[in-house]
Amino acid sequence: MDPHPPGTAAPERQRLVILAEGALGDHSAKTAYGVLRYGSRDVVAVIDSTKAPAVVGDFRDIPGRLDVPVVASLEAALALPQPPDALLIGIAPTGGRLPDAWKGILLSAIEHGLDIISGLHTFLADDPDLVAAAAAHGVALQDVRRPTGPRTTAVGRRHGPGKRVILAVGTDCAVGKMSVMLELRRAALADGVSASFVATGQTGIMIEGWGAPVDAIVSDFVQGAMERIVEQGEQLGDWVMVEGQGSLDHPAYSSVTLGLIHGATPHAMVLVHKPGLLDHDFDHLPDRTFPLAPLPGFIDLHERIASAVAPAKVVAVALNTSLYADETDARRIIEQTAAETGLPCDDPYRFGPERLWAAVRERVDTLVG
Amino acid sequence: MDPHPPGTAAPERQRLVILAEGALGDHSAKTAYGVLRYGSRDVVAVIDSTKAPAVVGDFRDIPGRLDVPVVASLEAALALPQPPDALLIGIAPTGGRLPDAWKGILLSAIEHGLDIISGLHTFLADDPDLVAAAAAHGVALQDVRRPTGPRTTAVGRRHGPGKRVILAVGTDCAVGKMSVMLELRRAALADGVSASFVATGQTGIMIEGWGAPVDAIVSDFVQGAMERIVEQGEQLGDWVMVEGQGSLDHPAYSSVTLGLIHGATPHAMVLVHKPGLLDHDFDHLPDRTFPLAPLPGFIDLHERIASAVAPAKVVAVALNTSLYADETDARRIIEQTAAETGLPCDDPYRFGPERLWAAVRERVDTLVG
Repeated sequence: MDPHPPGTAAPERQRLVILAEGALGDHSAKTAYGVLRYGSRDVVAVIDSTKAPAVVGDFRDIPGRLDVPVVASLEAALALPQPPDALLIGIAPTGGRLPDAWKGILLSAIEHGLDIISGLHTFLADDPDLVAAAAAHGVALQDVRRPTGPRTTAVGRRHGPGKRVILAVGTDCAVGKMSVMLELRRAALADGVSASFVATGQTGIMIEGWGAPVDAIVSDFVQGAMERIVEQGEQLGDWVMVEGQGSLDHPAYSSVTLGLIHGATPHAMVLVHKPGLLDHDFDHLPDRTFPLAPLPGFIDLHERIASAVAPAKVVAVALNTSLYADETDARRIIEQTAAETGLPCDDPYRFGPERLWAAVRERVDTLVG
Repeated sequence: MDPHPPGTAAPERQRLVILAEGALGDHSAKTAYGVLRYGSRDVVAVIDSTKAPAVVGDFRDIPGRLDVPVVASLEAALALPQPPDALLIGIAPTGGRLPDAWKGILLSAIEHGLDIISGLHTFLADDPDLVAAAAAHGVALQDVRRPTGPRTTAVGRRHGPGKRVILAVGTDCAVGKMSVMLELRRAALADGVSASFVATGQTGIMIEGWGAPVDAIVSDFVQGAMERIVEQGEQLGDWVMVEGQGSLDHPAYSSVTLGLIHGATPHAMVLVHKPGLLDHDFDHLPDRTFPLAPLPGFIDLHERIASAVAPAKVVAVALNTSLYADETDARRIIEQTAAETGLPCDDPYRFGPERLWAAVRERVDTLVG
């Protein structure tokens, strides 16, 4: 997806059915959950034959979407009183490939007149069968992960006067970096502050309607793309909340993470962590695990590597306490983490973003002056 | 370029003319110099109309190539007693694009039956005019920077038993990381040690005939590509010398550098530096410079960030003393750098790689055990 010029309209309204076959209740459905929680489009159903019949609320507490039905098939979604007019692929598998079994579902959706929205590394528009079917049925194939911006290297751009750029970093993939930044943007706007969100991955782009799919960009141009979309974010708001990707110690994705840090050159970073996770979600080799880093040293590492290009501090820790069902446990862990790191800490998804936003605002204003 | 299966033959012999228009005497001709110094193919001439008539030795002390003529035009090269049968594009401009003015030269070369070898980000095979001309004249267009290996993420592979993987890192682009690793491989082989070279950029691939053009690979797959070509390097030798790219503090390319570190997971790194350079070669904005990092802290930063995935030490510093014409000055700076860093230090390009290789070998054997 090309970064749209700032100020353009939100994506046109569609009634979505989200394909999340076999993935509900699992973090591989994170695109589905993100679009359900933060997207503005109607969602008429989620397809997961392994969980149907059910409702979204059985798997995730998403305000306003608890009653969205989980159905067993595309046909069941098409039989609803308000049938969908677009199918959104709601999983993000390792490597980003389209499972073979799903192609038949996509062809069937196209034959029923549905647009297809995909964030996979494998582009729909590169599949001759899908392209031919889409042309025959007059539907659109939207590959949000296809980079279409200019292929340019970073130039060392300075931020605009008065702008504050905040980047989410994390201890692993899929811990909630996007959600934290969307929550902080929401709190900033509620506070009467001019703020924008810069999407760097497929789910964020589906939600926001623009951004750059950084992990799909040729490596030489990652930092240039980040510089460009942060500039666009600055045109949309004074506080620019940048979605993070991967983690700085990830065996497969750390270089994407550093591209965000050195391309966005944030004034400050918010570290996102999911207490209870011990190892990276990375189990390709049966006898090998990669433990998550202890927070204090990892915070220092972020500040040191960021400052190799432009100084930046970690100003807060956002926890994803979803592994702790009990609220008392969650609040205790938040307290412990604040004490361990010396930083403001909260779970903005579970307990609201207001306190974390207030802390970030105060610290960044003090830092930047 | 696809990583060729280890053990395949070197690139077939060609008589090259190298296009380096306007670039001789400048580090933007680094591909030309690399192929002249380390390549095995005949070079009948270099084209640079701003420097002709001249010989390579007027610009660079390259043993065996001092008398290669610098000519003003393709026509002059074609009129030589041994005319070329391939044209190699010998510059690496920022962003990797083909200067417009050169396209006419390429078309003329194709019309005269020359293959074209390019390492630019802009692929020859994507230009309809060049493709049509090549088809009409039966010549090959070779884009060594086109990634054709599998698009796979890293899996956390362990190195093979007894293997030693050494990665070059640097304080800037274009300081000599490739040359240092080629020199170390040469010294290891001369020492009777099994050793290989793993090319990660266009010049290295042109020299070696295989490798991965890492900066042209989609960012999600950089660490996977590194893991794969290091495995191939291990099949070719016990000591695997991996070409580096960029620098960990580069505003545009640091994420590529980290992809090499965390994808190759080297046992040890050799830091390459060019004394006398003060700022990164990065002047996009007239009022902004990016100073090079002081060596001791930068060495520590490399070790810390590497160890976030797999422990690795910087075991030696290789200097490019080309800014110091006087040998006494060069040797003094080598001594100073050894004292400042506490590491073995030499200029292996200028003074031979034997001492640096002996120091690397001893330190790595001690580290790895």
